[in-house]
Amino acid sequence: MADAELAELRTELHADWSVEGEPRRLRRDIRVRDFQTAFTLATRVALYAESVGHHPDLHVTWGRLGVEIWTHKARGITHSDLVFAAHVDAAADGL
Amino acid sequence: MADAELAELRTELHADWSVEGEPRRLRRDIRVRDFQTAFTLATRVALYAESVGHHPDLHVTWGRLGVEIWTHKARGITHSDLVFAAHVDAAADGL
Repeated sequence: MADAELAELRTELHADWSVEGEPRRLRRDIRVRDFQTAFTLATRVALYAESVGHHPDLHVTWGRLGVEIWTHKARGITHSDLVFAAHVDAAADGL
Repeated sequence: MADAELAELRTELHADWSVEGEPRRLRRDIRVRDFQTAFTLATRVALYAESVGHHPDLHVTWGRLGVEIWTHKARGITHSDLVFAAHVDAAADGL
């Protein structure tokens, strides 16, 4: 995805998403109140991941869930990743 | 925990555990067959963590679960962490 398009589409996501790494990936750290809440959110994201066959990296720690999304085959960020990120935002909002 | 004691007790754990970081922590990467299996194992570890009130870092990615254990208050590795690691090994063996 071209930088300009990515920059435009990112405005529809939570402001905490950043673009990092090589290949590029979308990353968000979501602060929550404890380990159980972090794992609950991870579970929601994991169930969504299985349902769409698109799998993020999830980093669960006390009070925080880290999510990284990218498309292996494309070696970077695709529209699918942005849709996935929007679902993560919705899951986080629903806590 | 003194280095000599840690070295001795580590022999009772899976050989893949390493000691890393500052403060020191126990780390194991467990290879599994897919994302679902990695998350299943993460769930077992998370439920155990809640039951004992001791919380690791969990890194779920496709085909792998990373576990890091240490004791925040002790700024390092304690006997509780070694017991926790042994439970992670048992959960991984039970997959």
